[in-house]
Amino acid sequence: MAESEFDIIRHYFAGHRAGRDDVLVGIGDDAALLQVPPGRVLAVCMDTLVAGVHFPLETTAAAIGHKSLAVNLSDLAAMGAEPAWATLALTLPESDPAWLEEFSGAFFALADRYAVQLVGGDTTCGPLVITVQAHGFVTPGKALLRQGARPGERIYVTGTLGDAGLALRMNEPGDTWLRMRLDFPQPRIEAGLVLREYASAAIDISDGLLADLGHLLEGDRLGASLRIDALPRSEAFQAVMKTMDPERQRLFYELPLSAGDDYELCFTVAEKYCGEMEARLAGVPGGCQWIGVVEAAPGIRCYRDDGTSYRPAVTGYQHFSGTS
Amino acid sequence: MAESEFDIIRHYFAGHRAGRDDVLVGIGDDAALLQVPPGRVLAVCMDTLVAGVHFPLETTAAAIGHKSLAVNLSDLAAMGAEPAWATLALTLPESDPAWLEEFSGAFFALADRYAVQLVGGDTTCGPLVITVQAHGFVTPGKALLRQGARPGERIYVTGTLGDAGLALRMNEPGDTWLRMRLDFPQPRIEAGLVLREYASAAIDISDGLLADLGHLLEGDRLGASLRIDALPRSEAFQAVMKTMDPERQRLFYELPLSAGDDYELCFTVAEKYCGEMEARLAGVPGGCQWIGVVEAAPGIRCYRDDGTSYRPAVTGYQHFSGTS
Repeated sequence: MAESEFDIIRHYFAGHRAGRDDVLVGIGDDAALLQVPPGRVLAVCMDTLVAGVHFPLETTAAAIGHKSLAVNLSDLAAMGAEPAWATLALTLPESDPAWLEEFSGAFFALADRYAVQLVGGDTTCGPLVITVQAHGFVTPGKALLRQGARPGERIYVTGTLGDAGLALRMNEPGDTWLRMRLDFPQPRIEAGLVLREYASAAIDISDGLLADLGHLLEGDRLGASLRIDALPRSEAFQAVMKTMDPERQRLFYELPLSAGDDYELCFTVAEKYCGEMEARLAGVPGGCQWIGVVEAAPGIRCYRDDGTSYRPAVTGYQHFSGTS
Repeated sequence: MAESEFDIIRHYFAGHRAGRDDVLVGIGDDAALLQVPPGRVLAVCMDTLVAGVHFPLETTAAAIGHKSLAVNLSDLAAMGAEPAWATLALTLPESDPAWLEEFSGAFFALADRYAVQLVGGDTTCGPLVITVQAHGFVTPGKALLRQGARPGERIYVTGTLGDAGLALRMNEPGDTWLRMRLDFPQPRIEAGLVLREYASAAIDISDGLLADLGHLLEGDRLGASLRIDALPRSEAFQAVMKTMDPERQRLFYELPLSAGDDYELCFTVAEKYCGEMEARLAGVPGGCQWIGVVEAAPGIRCYRDDGTSYRPAVTGYQHFSGTS
């Protein structure tokens, strides 16, 4: 039996509270009323997931629920923001209780981990599209911006790269480690909070390292050299690579450069802070890996460990590029 | 020629500024950084429009652009909030320059009227779905909530009711006055700001008067009597009514009770404030009309001017109700 919009909100979403005293009015009025702490600035970001575009149609409701919030928390992480509230616009072809139970369960499991309160949104009938806005706090002047890198600074990433892209291309169902990396990305909130003290610039990797590092560098008209052999590849990634023929091996060797959906952080740090920063991040989920250096000359140049230059075949994910 | 996501954002959305100094970082980073004024509380609301569900498929891009923001500003108006910022999640089947020009033009025309700055969002490829979040400020303790009405208080609405519903049912294209009421609803921001000083409770009418007044009353377990003949019907509405046969006249006579999409405010005011409130609202777009009285007994009872009771055939709009 189908439920009305109001029943869905009441049943699956309105009752779950994070116990925050900065939510003066939550779900149930025309708008939520929220109190930003004195001396803090509000950070907001909004990301949409479209079925069949941002996730395969067979993706579980739990993965969609987790990911719709995770990709937004990842943006907050890239600002060095402390998460606080979320809103959810959920457009659904039908009201399926099992689907809603699973979706909301995974959404709130992640929300609870960071004390994020769902404060509002909209539930509508239509093709499966999920938009989430995340809200966090930063101290003025302490936010991590995309601009700010300087030539000579080191480039780092958290976690490992290419796992989600490999899982997508292998298209294996189930809950393998690689598939979990695609379906349940972990926003690097803890790393972002540490990096406020060290990083000159930061971005999260949603469209692929080359594309997103490009966004980080372009505002300051800078470039970079990347050590492609140094890109962090997970054990699972390397194990799959070993089973492949040389042609596919070469293709997949590049995945950490171009594949999206990793939601790791890419950031730059002046050399004098690198030791302390690495020590601090060693104790934080994802850790970090030094992968290159900021350079004054625009463009991103890739090198192998033997010193030869490497020209990638593909770059980042482009929306609407199917028709361009 | 199709454009990439980044080109669309740059071309149609990123360049338009409202000149607000509370936007520290706008479009172009992982998140926007926003400064809520000291002593104010943040009001946020989020509404989704789905093509073919919330507007007819032939609706112009200008109407969609206007309405996607207007329905959210209407929610802020119902809180008595002062609008400040918006975010936009735009899911599009294709990147059509003419459509985008028209959509963004109408969106910004309305945004500019209230100095609303677009500070972020997401542009994705998929079925046409638009989610907007509006952000405004209220003074603590001064917000208009749905709860707070008391028995004996008068019930008012702004503007006229049923125009949008009539336009939808007549389905006439073009820019008739009634069609403009459907396609270009005017958020009652000015009225909401005045009402902070007088109203005990308020809601905006998106799902129909009976449904939304019901939401206003249900939190306090109250009821109401409504004067159905006193519901404000526009001249255009009355003119169309006159051309109809008696059966359709009766059906459409009820539209102001049940039709959604009017985006007027419904609010309650204690009798002692009504004179002053009416005088203040007389100078504000939409004005107001006294339509009923809050009562202790739950349920909404409708009466004709001759004192007979009137039982409406239909109530409010229910999402997902097509399959229930």
